[in-house]
Amino acid sequence: MTNRLNIAMLGSKFMGRAHSNAWSQVGHFFELPLLPHQDTVVARNPEELAAFAEQWGWDNHTTDWRAAVTNPLIDLVDIGTPNNVHAEAAIAALEAGKHVACEKPLAGTIEDAEAMAAAAANAPGKTFVWFNYRRVPAVALAHRLVASGAIGRIYHVRATYLQSWGGPDTPMRWRFQGDIAGSGAHGDLNAHIVDAARFITGEEIVSVEGAIEETFISERTDGDQTSASTVDDAVLFLARMQGGAVASFEATRLATGYLNGNRIEIHGERGALRFNFERMNELDVYRTDAARGERGWTTIFATNEDHPYAAAWWPTGHGLGYEHAFINQARDIVVSIAGGEPLVPMPDFADALQTQRVLEAALISAREHRPVAVT
Amino acid sequence: MTNRLNIAMLGSKFMGRAHSNAWSQVGHFFELPLLPHQDTVVARNPEELAAFAEQWGWDNHTTDWRAAVTNPLIDLVDIGTPNNVHAEAAIAALEAGKHVACEKPLAGTIEDAEAMAAAAANAPGKTFVWFNYRRVPAVALAHRLVASGAIGRIYHVRATYLQSWGGPDTPMRWRFQGDIAGSGAHGDLNAHIVDAARFITGEEIVSVEGAIEETFISERTDGDQTSASTVDDAVLFLARMQGGAVASFEATRLATGYLNGNRIEIHGERGALRFNFERMNELDVYRTDAARGERGWTTIFATNEDHPYAAAWWPTGHGLGYEHAFINQARDIVVSIAGGEPLVPMPDFADALQTQRVLEAALISAREHRPVAVT
Amino acid sequence: MTNRLNIAMLGSKFMGRAHSNAWSQVGHFFELPLLPHQDTVVARNPEELAAFAEQWGWDNHTTDWRAAVTNPLIDLVDIGTPNNVHAEAAIAALEAGKHVACEKPLAGTIEDAEAMAAAAANAPGKTFVWFNYRRVPAVALAHRLVASGAIGRIYHVRATYLQSWGGPDTPMRWRFQGDIAGSGAHGDLNAHIVDAARFITGEEIVSVEGAIEETFISERTDGDQTSASTVDDAVLFLARMQGGAVASFEATRLATGYLNGNRIEIHGERGALRFNFERMNELDVYRTDAARGERGWTTIFATNEDHPYAAAWWPTGHGLGYEHAFINQARDIVVSIAGGEPLVPMPDFADALQTQRVLEAALISAREHRPVAVT
Amino acid sequence: MTNRLNIAMLGSKFMGRAHSNAWSQVGHFFELPLLPHQDTVVARNPEELAAFAEQWGWDNHTTDWRAAVTNPLIDLVDIGTPNNVHAEAAIAALEAGKHVACEKPLAGTIEDAEAMAAAAANAPGKTFVWFNYRRVPAVALAHRLVASGAIGRIYHVRATYLQSWGGPDTPMRWRFQGDIAGSGAHGDLNAHIVDAARFITGEEIVSVEGAIEETFISERTDGDQTSASTVDDAVLFLARMQGGAVASFEATRLATGYLNGNRIEIHGERGALRFNFERMNELDVYRTDAARGERGWTTIFATNEDHPYAAAWWPTGHGLGYEHAFINQARDIVVSIAGGEPLVPMPDFADALQTQRVLEAALISAREHRPVAVT
Repeated sequence: MTNRLNIAMLGSKFMGRAHSNAWSQVGHFFELPLLPHQDTVVARNPEELAAFAEQWGWDNHTTDWRAAVTNPLIDLVDIGTPNNVHAEAAIAALEAGKHVACEKPLAGTIEDAEAMAAAAANAPGKTFVWFNYRRVPAVALAHRLVASGAIGRIYHVRATYLQSWGGPDTPMRWRFQGDIAGSGAHGDLNAHIVDAARFITGEEIVSVEGAIEETFISERTDGDQTSASTVDDAVLFLARMQGGAVASFEATRLATGYLNGNRIEIHGERGALRFNFERMNELDVYRTDAARGERGWTTIFATNEDHPYAAAWWPTGHGLGYEHAFINQARDIVVSIAGGEPLVPMPDFADALQTQRVLEAALISAREHRPVAVT
Repeated sequence: MTNRLNIAMLGSKFMGRAHSNAWSQVGHFFELPLLPHQDTVVARNPEELAAFAEQWGWDNHTTDWRAAVTNPLIDLVDIGTPNNVHAEAAIAALEAGKHVACEKPLAGTIEDAEAMAAAAANAPGKTFVWFNYRRVPAVALAHRLVASGAIGRIYHVRATYLQSWGGPDTPMRWRFQGDIAGSGAHGDLNAHIVDAARFITGEEIVSVEGAIEETFISERTDGDQTSASTVDDAVLFLARMQGGAVASFEATRLATGYLNGNRIEIHGERGALRFNFERMNELDVYRTDAARGERGWTTIFATNEDHPYAAAWWPTGHGLGYEHAFINQARDIVVSIAGGEPLVPMPDFADALQTQRVLEAALISAREHRPVAVT
Repeated sequence: MTNRLNIAMLGSKFMGRAHSNAWSQVGHFFELPLLPHQDTVVARNPEELAAFAEQWGWDNHTTDWRAAVTNPLIDLVDIGTPNNVHAEAAIAALEAGKHVACEKPLAGTIEDAEAMAAAAANAPGKTFVWFNYRRVPAVALAHRLVASGAIGRIYHVRATYLQSWGGPDTPMRWRFQGDIAGSGAHGDLNAHIVDAARFITGEEIVSVEGAIEETFISERTDGDQTSASTVDDAVLFLARMQGGAVASFEATRLATGYLNGNRIEIHGERGALRFNFERMNELDVYRTDAARGERGWTTIFATNEDHPYAAAWWPTGHGLGYEHAFINQARDIVVSIAGGEPLVPMPDFADALQTQRVLEAALISAREHRPVAVT
Repeated sequence: MTNRLNIAMLGSKFMGRAHSNAWSQVGHFFELPLLPHQDTVVARNPEELAAFAEQWGWDNHTTDWRAAVTNPLIDLVDIGTPNNVHAEAAIAALEAGKHVACEKPLAGTIEDAEAMAAAAANAPGKTFVWFNYRRVPAVALAHRLVASGAIGRIYHVRATYLQSWGGPDTPMRWRFQGDIAGSGAHGDLNAHIVDAARFITGEEIVSVEGAIEETFISERTDGDQTSASTVDDAVLFLARMQGGAVASFEATRLATGYLNGNRIEIHGERGALRFNFERMNELDVYRTDAARGERGWTTIFATNEDHPYAAAWWPTGHGLGYEHAFINQARDIVVSIAGGEPLVPMPDFADALQTQRVLEAALISAREHRPVAVT
């Protein structure tokens, strides 16, 4: 009989739903060496929490996160809370010997992130960070193509994460308060595309060459009250990668027209790749080894058995949605805990710390108006 | 406490998975007046069946379909078996007073379809047919736009369902045997686009004006054996609609390049609509009420609260996948059984019979080389 | 010194402009064995004609078409007048020993077309028909790819020519009067896509299997007057091709949203092609010989030296416009008259008669509600 | 009778062809207050020059540029030579009282550009710079939409000019030699998109906040010889605009997959615009004043009478090509010289100097690793 993997999950908002869905669905679509079991959900509001546990099939619920993450029955602690409380829970869980899966970005501050990575290095548990877009089949395919040498030496990476919900009519919320949110578009969105650039190219970002941090809407209202927005609305930066490529990154909440424009373009000596999450089932590929008269961007509808994760789902030609990348990651987390290999590389805390360092370098560059090496 | 809706499902293949997923997911995303309960799954192979029931959370499993559909505890019979056995099970279930949800097309023959509709007319249970594409948010939005008068009088409907898995290298399977499958691309694919045309326009198809039925690959091999393929590979037909529009339909399994090209274009006096299931989260709309210099096709990313079903899912900008339309339909089935209204019209057996009559008229037209009225 | 090719052109409206432009531009971009000389332009309105000749660089102008086409100095008669007067001028020119280039469709009636083809067969001059879209580089590339065997046996051809200027607000004009215009969308638009299907596939259309001819707007007004529109607004038909493919054709002036939607899709055993004149510099190609995980539609930006005609123009990546296909055709006409070969096959009167026979068969099919063989 | 505008043109390569074409075509499509006359072409190679003059219809040709630009019969001097010789010819022509149209960028160095602008300020002639993309109808439409307030306050400008002909296999040419070419992708491509950003937004760029200048291929071969490439292959920079927007610019010759990817995206408070020269007849527009359920990117096929310049060409729905923007600009130059107004603003030397200052600031920023104000 398959052994259980007992999970305690922290958080019951957007990510709480996405993770709950992943744990409840993963066994329907993948053969697993361990049976994930939704043991305990933790959140702050007791009434909402009970309903959440009922709706999503968690056996237990509690407001006492520390009890949950140290509960001897728990194998995996899954953290979907705001960034500023990642570190405390993750470190406690690691010290209790648990495996830990943490939402991205790794932490709200570079200090927290470093502490988490240090704790992970000294703990028996495995760590995982929910950079879920890696497990969109088209993105995983991009990684594989680059790794196979399909595009050769990389010259350019151009990544943007464009959203548009942060206009002047959007009221004050905690997301615009720096003390709670840590940062704005930068931590939320640039985290994803920095991870994507690192993942797809297999190269590290070695320096930030210039950056802009901008808060377009400096004050926001909430009912009668007006207060200062203390996070960035947009951060843009230029960077260099270890193999010699130059790169640009842009995250913004005021790119009218884009709802979830998580886009990346990569140009190499022998080809190029292009992805846009708004058409998440497609990867555009350009290959110079085609005859000159037949070269062009090929749009791959990444739904067949040769596309990572796709075989687990529906027949060829039936696209996936947003949440499937979480379910694919849940599969890889379970397999990794059981000693197997993820289909494509999974970021652990050490890996996610590297992304955080790039974000930190970008902020310093923007504020000090100078290039900053990424250590 | 919410009352249960006890479900017996017939079938454990592709549609068995899709329906099981719908029943297991619907309560996670929608508030429901009844709690769908996966009571019993029915299929022919006992060993596979047990594993299927375990994997998908069905309490019971049996190879005795009649016992299941007449079980007094069952409220809803959900039929996902091959077309040629829809009628017997559906009629038995209706006679036992059950609600019945049946996969499309309604039946393998027009006679079966008529018998099913007649049984439904005389039974207390409600009937539903899984023309699931109606509940893709972009398609439901298309229906609403037409109903609102956005495009005015309709002139043209142009629908194609293009797949490409039926080339000469595909071995003989039951799907190519007319006695089992009933028909080829016609019943499988034209059924969907005839339903889509009727649903989105709100108009009936009144005549078929000409048709082609074609079997490109007349023989197929299976190991050492070669035998005749006795179903159509493609059926094309021209039709007229009740409001005066002209329409064309094409279904094929040999449209190299398309994996799931379920596409429809509708042109009216004041605008036009365009949908392609390969980009299922998008609806293209053209409106003549824009200034002449600003007219064009608008690509709506149908993921916000004003798009049918989308509010139940993820935040704006997070697309859905193939299976979500089934889950949306499961919501509407549950709500309808509880006496409520589906978000957009749901086909019952009488409605699906009308689609079947169009398909039948097309076949007669192709074989007798003449126009055929749809009664 | 290069010999001159003296041209007399009939017509000074839309096609008169397009042809004048072609003759004035061809020498700027192509090396030619003969120097096209704009000798004489013929039209009915003497005042407008003088201005037209001045603007477009015609040495002479006259209202006497017969004098022009029989003038011993003239080598090539270029006919850009309405369809109903093609035959008289073309036959007179052929009898006078001239080469003749005629606008499409070949004639307003099948009888005229047959007479023209007969005259051409018995005359020393060469004939050319301005099916200009053949010489759009992307379309010529499509022809070459099919001829090279790139897509193998052809299963499907799906061609539409969609315009939208014929709505109920469009006033009565000669184009809606059958006695003058001959036909509506059918002769104007289906002529192009029937030619395109024949050209790209290299196959003849052998039968029309069913058709619809429709006049949506039966009456139109012009100032105070209302009169009957006596041409088709749309004609759709289904056909079979000599190699076994099935095909559909649709021409309409009421496809709201499309301005010049001259589109064709061709599916073969080993690949597929897709073209849309609204993006005339692009050809989409799908090849099954790519690895399964990398298959997809490749969008070729047909502007490099390996694309027919493109080398004559601008550097790679600089697209062409509508009129360039005429200029490319002018090049091939000049080269052909000098005894050379066009870059891709050029339709003469015999070839264009075959297109006309397909159009005629479609009309008979629509009116007599039966399949019609194309002789 | 219409007065002549006598033109002397310098240059007979790519731009010589494009300008010759513009002068020979402009009178065919536009009503003009002056008749442009192709009087004299100037270039260095006497043999090629005679053939060029013959082919393109220049009455005279000479290798003596100074004689040509000071010839009393000449009204307009049109400069299409390499950047490093713009200044001498332009200043001489201005001093001789001529109007001057100069290719972009204004000059090879900021000093030259300043001298040219100073000369223009003190001369009676009018000056024009061939930033031809302003007169692509879709780009001119973008300018008009922004000027009308359609997108409100601007937050983001994101411009890239991506080409791919500069890979390691491309041999050494003068374009890779800094002493001749001045710069690489920066002067050639960033010049265009900086102009586009300024033109469409109507805002100046006030600072460069960070930049990268990169030469990926440091050595190139020509036959047996290998020598250093001394120009940039790519320049990226971040900037701020006068109205508070943040902007990014990127020019490269190694963006595999793009042939002429002159792209710009602009996001404002009430809408957004998107243009890609590889689909030059299209402008994508997003408006927040549409109903929330119907918002999306609208693709305008910019070929109707409400689109700048389009009415002069073909009927609605017939796209233009690369050279048409030059012809449109030729129209505006002639009209301006005659005292009229261009359809959209035309850059003179003072305006083009401002673009050059931005380019210069970007280079300083890249080399000195600091923000640089644009004066």
